[in-house]
Amino acid sequence: MVRTIVVGGVAGGMSAATRLRRLASGAEIVVLERGPEVSYANCGLPYYAGGVIERRDDLLLQTPQSLHTRFGLDVRVRTEVLAIDRETRRLRVRDLVTGREYDEGYDHLVLSPGAAPVVPELPGVERALTLRTVAEADRLAAAVRGGARTAVVVGGGFIGLEVAENLARRGLTVAVVERDAQVLAPLDPEMAAPVHAELAANGVALHLGATVTKVLADVVELHDGRLLDADLVLLAIGVRPETDLASGAGLKLGPRGGIAVDETMRTSDPHIYAVGDAVEKVDRVGGAPSLIPLANSANRQGRLAADAIAGLPVRLGGRIGTAIVQVFGLTVATTGANEKRLRAAGRPYRVIHTHPASHAGYYPGAEPMSLKLLLDPDDATLLGAQAVGGAGVDKRIDVLATALYAGLRADELADLELGYAPAFGSAKDPVNMLGYIAGNQLSDGEQSIQWHEVAAAVEAGAALLDVRTAAEYAAGHLPGAISLPLDELRERMAEVPDRALIVYCQVGQRGHTATALLTGHGYRVHNLDGGYRTWKAGTASVQSARPGAA
Amino acid sequence: MVRTIVVGGVAGGMSAATRLRRLASGAEIVVLERGPEVSYANCGLPYYAGGVIERRDDLLLQTPQSLHTRFGLDVRVRTEVLAIDRETRRLRVRDLVTGREYDEGYDHLVLSPGAAPVVPELPGVERALTLRTVAEADRLAAAVRGGARTAVVVGGGFIGLEVAENLARRGLTVAVVERDAQVLAPLDPEMAAPVHAELAANGVALHLGATVTKVLADVVELHDGRLLDADLVLLAIGVRPETDLASGAGLKLGPRGGIAVDETMRTSDPHIYAVGDAVEKVDRVGGAPSLIPLANSANRQGRLAADAIAGLPVRLGGRIGTAIVQVFGLTVATTGANEKRLRAAGRPYRVIHTHPASHAGYYPGAEPMSLKLLLDPDDATLLGAQAVGGAGVDKRIDVLATALYAGLRADELADLELGYAPAFGSAKDPVNMLGYIAGNQLSDGEQSIQWHEVAAAVEAGAALLDVRTAAEYAAGHLPGAISLPLDELRERMAEVPDRALIVYCQVGQRGHTATALLTGHGYRVHNLDGGYRTWKAGTASVQSARPGAA
Ligand SMILES: Cc1cc2nc3c(=O)[nH]c(=O)nc-3n(C[C@H](O)[C@H](O)[C@H](O)COP(=O)(O)OP(=O)(O)OC[C@H]3O[C@@H](n4cnc5c(N)ncnc54)[C@H](O)[C@@H]3O)c2cc1C
Ligand SMILES: Cc1cc2nc3c(=O)[nH]c(=O)nc-3n(C[C@H](O)[C@H](O)[C@H](O)COP(=O)(O)OP(=O)(O)OC[C@H]3O[C@@H](n4cnc5c(N)ncnc54)[C@H](O)[C@@H]3O)c2cc1C
Ligand SMILES: CC(C)(COP(=O)(O)OP(=O)(O)OC[C@H]1O[C@@H](n2cnc3c(N)ncnc32)[C@H](O)[C@@H]1OP(=O)(O)O)[C@@H](O)C(=O)NCCC(=O)NCCS
Ligand SMILES: CC(C)(COP(=O)(O)OP(=O)(O)OC[C@H]1O[C@@H](n2cnc3c(N)ncnc32)[C@H](O)[C@@H]1OP(=O)(O)O)[C@@H](O)C(=O)NCCC(=O)NCCS
Repeated sequence: MVRTIVVGGVAGGMSAATRLRRLASGAEIVVLERGPEVSYANCGLPYYAGGVIERRDDLLLQTPQSLHTRFGLDVRVRTEVLAIDRETRRLRVRDLVTGREYDEGYDHLVLSPGAAPVVPELPGVERALTLRTVAEADRLAAAVRGGARTAVVVGGGFIGLEVAENLARRGLTVAVVERDAQVLAPLDPEMAAPVHAELAANGVALHLGATVTKVLADVVELHDGRLLDADLVLLAIGVRPETDLASGAGLKLGPRGGIAVDETMRTSDPHIYAVGDAVEKVDRVGGAPSLIPLANSANRQGRLAADAIAGLPVRLGGRIGTAIVQVFGLTVATTGANEKRLRAAGRPYRVIHTHPASHAGYYPGAEPMSLKLLLDPDDATLLGAQAVGGAGVDKRIDVLATALYAGLRADELADLELGYAPAFGSAKDPVNMLGYIAGNQLSDGEQSIQWHEVAAAVEAGAALLDVRTAAEYAAGHLPGAISLPLDELRERMAEVPDRALIVYCQVGQRGHTATALLTGHGYRVHNLDGGYRTWKAGTASVQSARPGAA
Repeated sequence: MVRTIVVGGVAGGMSAATRLRRLASGAEIVVLERGPEVSYANCGLPYYAGGVIERRDDLLLQTPQSLHTRFGLDVRVRTEVLAIDRETRRLRVRDLVTGREYDEGYDHLVLSPGAAPVVPELPGVERALTLRTVAEADRLAAAVRGGARTAVVVGGGFIGLEVAENLARRGLTVAVVERDAQVLAPLDPEMAAPVHAELAANGVALHLGATVTKVLADVVELHDGRLLDADLVLLAIGVRPETDLASGAGLKLGPRGGIAVDETMRTSDPHIYAVGDAVEKVDRVGGAPSLIPLANSANRQGRLAADAIAGLPVRLGGRIGTAIVQVFGLTVATTGANEKRLRAAGRPYRVIHTHPASHAGYYPGAEPMSLKLLLDPDDATLLGAQAVGGAGVDKRIDVLATALYAGLRADELADLELGYAPAFGSAKDPVNMLGYIAGNQLSDGEQSIQWHEVAAAVEAGAALLDVRTAAEYAAGHLPGAISLPLDELRERMAEVPDRALIVYCQVGQRGHTATALLTGHGYRVHNLDGGYRTWKAGTASVQSARPGAA
């Protein structure tokens, strides 16, 4: 009988095992898992620690027993694979309960060992917790129950912020320490600014541009000597692919340090497949190798490995890496490439910011959001998108991720027919608006200017025209801007300075109408993309990037 | 100066006027509107009547004055266009306040006269209200304030159900009378069944297969003589394109009775464009002419007419017709073609039903939904989708509408990377699942059977196998089904009858695993698509289709 062994019994591994069973009812399938649980919801761990998910059992989607009963799988927990002998196709395995070691032969091997939290070498770091497994979530929950009052979360990534929120929910005083000038690296800085504000509004102290140098008994010490109270320390500064087993067996690793696989999930050994957080993927945008430690890809790849073993045709294209996270009242979501990454890769791009409402403004309960779109300046295909706000952020990112996958041009977004009733969207949905704005720049040649380009343009002689109302202007404006409300512009055209103009409103929309009007009157005009709101967020992000600004 | 006249000052018309102003700052633009308001939110009218939208002013997005100030538009309300003299390019116009008639010359004409509620010829129908304009919403709201206690809504379409809900919200006892065997015609019958249940659960009496024969002083009489209390009667049996003006001028109409336009919104007269509810569109799926009286298309077409007048390249492809509506606690959404329409067109298709949760089951608050996907059996491209349920329905339909627009194959849905965190979706999102299920049928040759095909297959000798738990079986099952829970199937394989099998579970998922197992053991198996839930909904819809079943 053909025998497949799967190493790692969670997202990628168990998806491979159950799928393979459906494709090969008679095959022998063994799953070896180091930990005490399989098929658990890693993604739920922060919420279990925070008490949102109340029952520990809810985290366990399957058990070795249920997988045996339903799928006829031989699932062995507390069982570590120590080594692969590729020559003889045998694994060296240790039963972690008894300590006994034994060998297991395979015809096909699927590796889905995941990734491990990065733990820096720091004095006292042994006291710090990490969060990857149910056991670690138990430890975190126990620390909270044990009376911890203060917490320092090291790392402002997705997991760090989820943990910070959940600890705050439990009443702890929480500080987040982040080495970078912003949280959530997939966001560009001006999109991260509202997240910083949301953390502050919810009492989470954010220390940007800061590193931890020591973990002491009940404080942590930062690079500048500051001490932060920390009954509890959680490390969430990233994960690294679990590659010991693979590299020990001489399997090829990729440039980013993950296991190298081809489009069929096969490693450099034709009998060994690898999937999930441990492997390298290819970015759909740009084609660069990348680590995308997300559950969607792990599950997808696991299933594809089973297909490949069963002889079905398999081909996984480049990955987009859509990600989403709740940060208190904000939803933050990204898909594709961000501006930082495109700039670093030297790839030309165009940027659009908007600040639409989740649904029609005349219907109660609309929530604001900020959207950013990146597109190819030549063929207008989508390169990436970011969204931060309330309701409807998840929907817009999923639509944009679908459009990006399908290779749509940005101006085609105007053509999408998205469900509109007052409680759900607008007659021109925010995604349609992105398409309109893109089209205006692409075919109509409307010029926009980005928040970080304003200072230089003003330096070079451009005049700044604020077309918002007098009240909006009074509440805050760009330095040196002249106030000339859109609704007075036609009559006061004579007052417009005879120079290159940068026009702006609150979000870009009135600026667009003003730009059209002024262009029609012969002016050379740039519309400030995303308006005052994006400029404000962008300049705030520059502030927080200054050393010691936290 | 080039002079454009727009007839109709709401969704399509005003979108054309404002856009044209941005493209042609010096042009003369006149908007003629019969009613007292322009730029109002038709889509909000039911919610204004229901008190959800509290301020009447919130419905008015712009006023003639604001449009003059901002866009330099000459907007004339209470001004009806009576006739078009195409030869001389002049309109005959009546000022409805003074009764004065006058002529207006145009270079370009844009018609966006909308559609009018269909009013059947019935004794007493004068008493019945319709809902299209703000004035009609005022009348409806006044009737409620005036003490109406009972209401009959004639027509179970989108607007009828929105009004029914809003009247119920105001405390009225509401009955809906629908000629068809189901409400919301874009849904297939098994998808409409939960909507019927939701109406009933909220105290709305539903009379299906029923027509109104008389409107009397405080009741309406149905075809079978029944009388329904009706202090208030609202007609919402559909709209017909406003084509009097166009046909009076000899403009070509299309086969569905709307104004015929080409891809650039041009009518049979090169100086006249027409947009919105009054014109015929082309279905993206199938290419048939159709009336799609929705705001997205009206706004889009209005903007495109302006582009065409300004000389920009314009080309509007076929329309998908995505629609969404809230019905009490349910969200109902559709995109593309439904099964009824495909069957009528003789177009082959394949069907998939699922019943996923809005987000990961282990995270609190997940809400159930039902999804239906229609795909081309040959090339697997999407043909249409329907969704009914709670949270997340709008997102899934918008993703599917985007995929349909982009021409994706159903199995490619498995590859989409949609934002996943526990509060937003699942590691395999419902849309991904549709892709998996499609792929299983397409490449792996898994056979499914639809709810309405079961009876004939059983007749022909197939055995019915219920693989749910004993408790689920006890709570209701298909007539004649054998209970054999999935988790016992491996051991009790000997009990499986040696015949063609129809396997089912609650939603199709366990049925799929059972099907795989049984197929592996040499059985010829069909998995009941959508499981017991779809079968139950489908058979309920057949019941309600029986004459007098209401
Ligand atoms: C706290 C947290 C929150 C997350 N939130 C999200 C989210 O919201 N959205 C999202 O998309 N993703 C999220 N993720 C990421 C997601 O969980 C992973 O992408 C996914 O679990 C990866 O699957 P995998 O199979 O590669 O690895 P894992 O699921 O980690 O499984 C690997 C398993 O292999 C076992 N193993 C490793 N080496 C051996 C060995 N030598 N012998 C035997 N067993 C071994 C490990 O014990 C482990 O159980 C989150 C992760 C964490 C930790
Ligand atoms: C109650 C209700 C709820 C709706 N809900 C939704 C929804 O949730 N989602 C959705 O997508 N769509 C919805 N719609 C449909 C949407 O409102 C229409 O598709 C859209 O308004 C069509 O735009 P239009 O410009 O073609 O017509 P309209 O917006 O109706 O504008 C036409 C205007 O032309 C004027 N006019 C007509 N003839 C003349 C003439 N001879 N001279 C001068 N003026 C004239 C009329 O007075 C009217 O004001 C709803 C409609 C109604 C009535
Ligand atoms: C759950 C787990 C064991 C996989 O089990 P599984 O049975 O393969 O997968 P699911 O329960 O997701 O169901 C998917 C299967 O049901 C099928 N299915 C779903 N709905 C269906 C329906 N209505 N009709 C027919 N089939 C259906 C799918 O096609 C798929 O089968 P396929 O792979 O043969 O195409 C594995 O993913 C796991 O351990 N997950 C937990 C860990 C995890 O994902 N962590 C990270 C995120 S928190
Ligand atoms: C509102 C109405 C007057 C149209 O006004 P409009 O200014 O053309 O349209 P919107 O307010 O929707 O704004 C869209 C414009 O702003 C631009 N825009 C939006 N956000 C922008 C941003 N952040 N930056 C730059 N431009 C932006 C768009 O590109 C578009 O301009 P364009 O057409 O030149 O490309 C018209 O649609 C109307 O009367 N609507 C009410 C009736 C209705 O729609 N009823 C049916 C549904 S209830």
